[in-house]
Amino acid sequence: MFCKSFFYTDRVNTDSLARCPISYTLDHIGDRWSLLILRDILFANKKHYDEFAASAEGISTNILANRLKQLEANGLILKQRYDENRRRFVYRPTEKALDLLPMIIEMIQWGARYDPHTGAPREVTDGIRMDAAGFATGVRKKFAEQ
Amino acid sequence: MFCKSFFYTDRVNTDSLARCPISYTLDHIGDRWSLLILRDILFANKKHYDEFAASAEGISTNILANRLKQLEANGLILKQRYDENRRRFVYRPTEKALDLLPMIIEMIQWGARYDPHTGAPREVTDGIRMDAAGFATGVRKKFAEQ
Repeated sequence: MFCKSFFYTDRVNTDSLARCPISYTLDHIGDRWSLLILRDILFANKKHYDEFAASAEGISTNILANRLKQLEANGLILKQRYDENRRRFVYRPTEKALDLLPMIIEMIQWGARYDPHTGAPREVTDGIRMDAAGFATGVRKKFAEQ
Repeated sequence: MFCKSFFYTDRVNTDSLARCPISYTLDHIGDRWSLLILRDILFANKKHYDEFAASAEGISTNILANRLKQLEANGLILKQRYDENRRRFVYRPTEKALDLLPMIIEMIQWGARYDPHTGAPREVTDGIRMDAAGFATGVRKKFAEQ
């Protein structure tokens, strides 16, 4: 049966040479805060530490600092010096992060569908459902222009 | 800017009436183990507690019991008595869980693409890329027949 061999091997002490792709993805974004920081970068145009700290979900500063480091180590964001003020940094998404857009779009659709208290306006989720690829392209374009 | 109002309100003490859809989805499957249990149910044909306990990732029994309860409380799995032996239970995915398939499929594709040590065979991920909807339909059909 392909499913079993697809997702992991039978070896109990499984080595890293046969990692489940879902497991790998969870290692990168399975932490709640990592993905919410990426959300703020990709959709809310946030670039600076202070902006992430002001998220509605109320991330603590030590978790924020830790997750930014992890995201950088995992190749999902780039930390760059901000020209006008060299003591400030700007965070940008990598291609690897932008490639998460189709997955994140599915998360948006599922959440908007099942949460009776969703904050997602119907016209926006309808627009995404009609043209998910176009939505992702729009987000990519924003960063390509920067 | 639609993104900000889409994903969350400006209220710092945000109430549950304007929840971000990504945040809602993370509440359900953002925990690493919850999604790996769902993976085992959806793709590896696992139904019983003992089968989940034997997963390659080595989940501890107390975490497993806790996550099964959470998945049930969140409406993602149904716990039913097993006819032949009334002391055993069988776990089945709900429609809400099956609706996660498009998101999980994107996680598979992303993980297989970026993990240099992925255990996902190329022909399988190529097949999913060619027909993701067909792959999801195949999984659904399996549970509809049961």
